[in-house]
Amino acid sequence: MTRAMALTQTDFQKFFNPRHIAIVGVSTGNYKFGGTSFLMKLQDGGYPGKLYPINPNAKEIRGLKIFPDVLSLPEVPDLAMVCVAAKFVPSVLEQCAQIGLRHIHILTSGFNETGREEGRRLEEQLVAISKANRLLIIGPNCMGPYCPSARLTAWGAIPGLSGTLGIISQSGGLTQRLTEYTYSLGIGVGKAVSFGNGTVLNATDFLEAMAEDESISIIAMYLESVRDGRRFLQIARDVGKKKPIILWKGGESRAGAATAASHTGAMSGEQRLWEAFFRQTGTIHVRSMNECVDIIMALSMLSAPAGKGVFIIGGGGGNSVACGDLCVREGLDVPQLSASSMESLRRVVPVAGSIAGNPLDMWLTFTDAGYLADVLDLAYKDPSVSMVIVDRLIPRKAFHMPDMIDPTPEIIEFLQSRHNKKPTVFAIDSEGGDPDLVRKGSNLKTQFCNSGIPAYPSVRRAARALFHLYSYHNFRKKSESSRK
Amino acid sequence: MTRAMALTQTDFQKFFNPRHIAIVGVSTGNYKFGGTSFLMKLQDGGYPGKLYPINPNAKEIRGLKIFPDVLSLPEVPDLAMVCVAAKFVPSVLEQCAQIGLRHIHILTSGFNETGREEGRRLEEQLVAISKANRLLIIGPNCMGPYCPSARLTAWGAIPGLSGTLGIISQSGGLTQRLTEYTYSLGIGVGKAVSFGNGTVLNATDFLEAMAEDESISIIAMYLESVRDGRRFLQIARDVGKKKPIILWKGGESRAGAATAASHTGAMSGEQRLWEAFFRQTGTIHVRSMNECVDIIMALSMLSAPAGKGVFIIGGGGGNSVACGDLCVREGLDVPQLSASSMESLRRVVPVAGSIAGNPLDMWLTFTDAGYLADVLDLAYKDPSVSMVIVDRLIPRKAFHMPDMIDPTPEIIEFLQSRHNKKPTVFAIDSEGGDPDLVRKGSNLKTQFCNSGIPAYPSVRRAARALFHLYSYHNFRKKSESSRK
Repeated sequence: MTRAMALTQTDFQKFFNPRHIAIVGVSTGNYKFGGTSFLMKLQDGGYPGKLYPINPNAKEIRGLKIFPDVLSLPEVPDLAMVCVAAKFVPSVLEQCAQIGLRHIHILTSGFNETGREEGRRLEEQLVAISKANRLLIIGPNCMGPYCPSARLTAWGAIPGLSGTLGIISQSGGLTQRLTEYTYSLGIGVGKAVSFGNGTVLNATDFLEAMAEDESISIIAMYLESVRDGRRFLQIARDVGKKKPIILWKGGESRAGAATAASHTGAMSGEQRLWEAFFRQTGTIHVRSMNECVDIIMALSMLSAPAGKGVFIIGGGGGNSVACGDLCVREGLDVPQLSASSMESLRRVVPVAGSIAGNPLDMWLTFTDAGYLADVLDLAYKDPSVSMVIVDRLIPRKAFHMPDMIDPTPEIIEFLQSRHNKKPTVFAIDSEGGDPDLVRKGSNLKTQFCNSGIPAYPSVRRAARALFHLYSYHNFRKKSESSRK
Repeated sequence: MTRAMALTQTDFQKFFNPRHIAIVGVSTGNYKFGGTSFLMKLQDGGYPGKLYPINPNAKEIRGLKIFPDVLSLPEVPDLAMVCVAAKFVPSVLEQCAQIGLRHIHILTSGFNETGREEGRRLEEQLVAISKANRLLIIGPNCMGPYCPSARLTAWGAIPGLSGTLGIISQSGGLTQRLTEYTYSLGIGVGKAVSFGNGTVLNATDFLEAMAEDESISIIAMYLESVRDGRRFLQIARDVGKKKPIILWKGGESRAGAATAASHTGAMSGEQRLWEAFFRQTGTIHVRSMNECVDIIMALSMLSAPAGKGVFIIGGGGGNSVACGDLCVREGLDVPQLSASSMESLRRVVPVAGSIAGNPLDMWLTFTDAGYLADVLDLAYKDPSVSMVIVDRLIPRKAFHMPDMIDPTPEIIEFLQSRHNKKPTVFAIDSEGGDPDLVRKGSNLKTQFCNSGIPAYPSVRRAARALFHLYSYHNFRKKSESSRK
């Protein structure tokens, strides 16, 4: 299908690696949100190109000359970030068109999403100007493009971590939160785009572009609506075979859909159509920020599991029962171990106070890294086990051994050295308890994550992430074998 | 129904307020778990009664004389805590019977739960001795009784916080964790019992006793099995009309059930029977420690909501859409506000960049306590609103206003002063982001909880807790009106 306004790979790269940027609408007063904030963050983030702030009523800001309008710029920058009030946007676009500035991000809100006549009219004007002048527009009502490798970090985690995650989102706030969150886990972003109302360029355009962009290996999306659903489905089906797509669909409930209409002017669409979409494309369906980040972490750090059988290593009888229940509820299998694994386990697990089996209830796994390593090696050999969740208890005051030696460095070294290992994640629950439990748990998670080992705050979340990991790879395997 | 071994209220109180305690099996060596640990924690916790440590091969421990056996004690204590190896337990019981010591807690494991002939035989012996001598036994294979007001805190949160929560559990580890967790939220425990295999006294006995105990207002249970299901159902149905019961049922999955058999020798029972149980008794069904603590917090701190309509106050367009979706998914309604509320809201919410409605997307609610108070007052008047979730963003580096004044004290003061308020909870998401986000979020939650205002780490968990709160009170209301 030929479209009027295709986003070529060249255009796409121009948005995320712009040589120079015009920031239309900066304020020299106290109010910083918008153009001024963008300018500050680009400067602080070390953006290497020239920045052209624009405001007809001011002369200078943070050491830069302010230009009165787009027409008076000394050269044509690659990108304009438009931050003026909605009613001024059409004339800014006209000026951009006049100098041949075709790549435009509009931060400004107050269009279709207001549900008011004036907003609708302004958005129609915007479409008309774009069509007449072949302007490519991200927005309005959004935070726009983000690319740490180009130091294009006008928002989000500062200074931004470069990586291979692609983000396509209709929410600026959630995108900002996501870049912060992955940053804290040591997972870098290739390109992120918050595109708001998606009036000219929409989710389908960005998905297609990120599919072709070889620097992107995982695509995470937050969407409230999709225009041209058929093309979106077709592209997602193709992309899904090459790279995992994660989709958080906002507006699934009636309440959410009503809010989505006010947020980005979106019609959220039929739930059952979306269900068919997920089934047909292998897209990973998440329903919260945590679930989204959890699967990103699994996809970034783990290889493909052979099946959905998980071995749970931890301690405490009730806790083991609960962990088994949780994993099954999240869609995994908790298989019986092989006869030879059980034989080995029974030799090293006492009859009273522990349980040899899956889950394994054996306190020594918390304290003795060598013991844990032996159990893991056993799991990596057992054909019924495809993935492993290691539940960690954090030593604390209420414990019998508050002063035990921290086995974490030895555990990390073991895992990094085992190249035959199966996907292995840690669950570190640090809620409640001593006041320092939260701090200890958070540090422990960071320690694992920064060593490339996924660590989750609960067995439930670990299990969910592993279920998604299995499901995605299973979809790929099936679609590969059906092509043969 | 007359039972051979009824647990009278007098017997029950003796377990939790024992005058003196014999600790059978203490070690003067390095190994502290068991009797020695109990002894230490009772001493450290300030238990006021006499402690009689027993070991035939040692003379003194921590300033106390050690007695060689139960028979040589100078008086009959109210309670024996038995911590010797399984094979010695029968003879200890015989000795207890001989001196008329009828209240016994057995920590020792190695009975039915091992699945071995020897364990089964020992457990049968235990039953026989108990019957012949009318011994009341908690256990074996458990942590036993816990009562902070009596300074009977041989395990769990140190020093233990006295309150009105009752805990009945087949898992010592989970009970210990639960007492720690609620302690950190400022919620005290009246009586907790970990009863393991439940060979003599079981869940039904403790439920009945806690129902009659006026110092207990909420009962939380972790169970893997129930003997005499009919009586359990009948008692739960009666209790549920007076006090909320929360039940976490371990062994719901096949994997969990298999582990439960190894943990406490339990047969977990049919899933559909349990579903009928929850429906008929109004018992609150939880599936994890977090869910259990979340509803305990709601029940402890909130009044009964009139309906299930929730008003969500927060900010961010995408976030609002997501919050609406989450609340509906957890079973709540997210109703449209009344016309007059909407009129008031529209006057103070700008057209662009915010959304007047439910959820309310208005950043000023994060920063301006007075503004938030006005919105809350509006919600308390609106008949479509029965409960409120206030989503809090934690100020952090990536924000535009890192230095804003903390509005929390003013918000807490407002809520404490409003006696007509509807159940109002806070959601404070502190995952990911700046390294100090976790610390800040944890402190903020503590600040709210210690002021009697429930605070949850996510909107999902807040919504789930409110759904349980609504469901329980709705059950009570219905059963009251059907009695009229």
